Amino acid sequence: MKVIAEFTLVPVGTGVSLSPYVAECEKILRDSGLKVQLHANGTNLEGEWEALFAAVKRCHEKVHQMGAPRIFTTLKIGTRTDKDQTLEDKVASVKEKFQDPSERKPRE
Amino acid sequence: MKVIAEFTLVPVGTGVSLSPYVAECEKILRDSGLKVQLHANGTNLEGEWEALFAAVKRCHEKVHQMGAPRIFTTLKIGTRTDKDQTLEDKVASVKEKFQDPSERKPRE
Amino acid sequence: MKVIAEFTLVPVGTGVSLSPYVAECEKILRDSGLKVQLHANGTNLEGEWEALFAAVKRCHEKVHQMGAPRIFTTLKIGTRTDKDQTLEDKVASVKEKFQDPSERKPRE
Amino acid sequence: MKVIAEFTLVPVGTGVSLSPYVAECEKILRDSGLKVQLHANGTNLEGEWEALFAAVKRCHEKVHQMGAPRIFTTLKIGTRTDKDQTLEDKVASVKEKFQDPSERKPRE
Repeated sequence: MKVIAEFTLVPVGTGVSLSPYVAECEKILRDSGLKVQLHANGTNLEGEWEALFAAVKRCHEKVHQMGAPRIFTTLKIGTRTDKDQTLEDKVASVKEKFQDPSERKPRE
Repeated sequence: MKVIAEFTLVPVGTGVSLSPYVAECEKILRDSGLKVQLHANGTNLEGEWEALFAAVKRCHEKVHQMGAPRIFTTLKIGTRTDKDQTLEDKVASVKEKFQDPSERKPRE
Repeated sequence: MKVIAEFTLVPVGTGVSLSPYVAECEKILRDSGLKVQLHANGTNLEGEWEALFAAVKRCHEKVHQMGAPRIFTTLKIGTRTDKDQTLEDKVASVKEKFQDPSERKPRE
Repeated sequence: MKVIAEFTLVPVGTGVSLSPYVAECEKILRDSGLKVQLHANGTNLEGEWEALFAAVKRCHEKVHQMGAPRIFTTLKIGTRTDKDQTLEDKVASVKEKFQDPSERKPRE
């Protein structure tokens, strides 16, 4: 089953800077064969169910190994049977209905 | 790896009533061997990583079979290495620090 | 606008125990006039939009005052126009479609 | 209080295509004065607490007006007192610790 997901991992009980943990996790995700798109509040993923959750588990294992005693992860999981959809399709389907004012051409 | 999770499944592209889908999913969760606690905004789960995500996958498969073309799931995943904690421990650790006013005994 | 919500606040950059922060937040929620139901992965809330988000903001202010430099909150927000629904209604609508095996009467 | 947020709105009880609703919501967000970054699983927002939640409320009102009887929204809310951080800072702080293999220069 193909999945479109968003993954946000928050180490708890460490210092205030979380980026060293997130960066290690990003390496794992990029080695996983999944499509990976980092953004400001998480990482969008696209791929097969088993591969995706195996990668998320490896992130938890790695971040615990790095010393975080506790991890709080949030995931959004989307599956659909009506059509195949990519991460790029999802953005495009909104943007085609929404013309950004900054991109509007001035009337002559 | 032991996990404490919260699982909320939203079928999309069906009618406005979601409870028939959620009820079928609850049956799957209760047959999974996981600890299961339904609440108003999702279901709390406790168990091993593989068993938990296998059950979530079976829910997606079942809800698609029931006719939902699209599913939007949110998951919270908690793991920790410092101690073993149950769903009940999590509530108790807050409640012991917080005395509900309705439970306060009146002063004599 | 009436809202049914779930609120999970995670202080970051503090120690591994989060319950002192969550307990202070619970006091704020219970003083807010909202309906409040604590569970193992968050707190379910029911009430008017403005009152609900004002209470969530007071929680952030309080937890920062207690020393947490960073807070990560997740919220689920449900609104509907087709009917009035309570936290209790949401659980009941699932449970009436799902008979818990432990509650099944043995056949004679 | 400044907030970095992620907002994902899912109309329920409509058809399977959600992008017309999301596009209307994007227009509201872009008229709100907040910083807005659409991605495949939601929209990242940066701005003041009141402005942000007022815009989210206007989205709910609009999507109900468009005919959706029920809306399921998820929000991530980040606040911090230790430093001012932007959406761009969050991505950069991870990327500086993670060198994308595709960007690695071959050794000579």
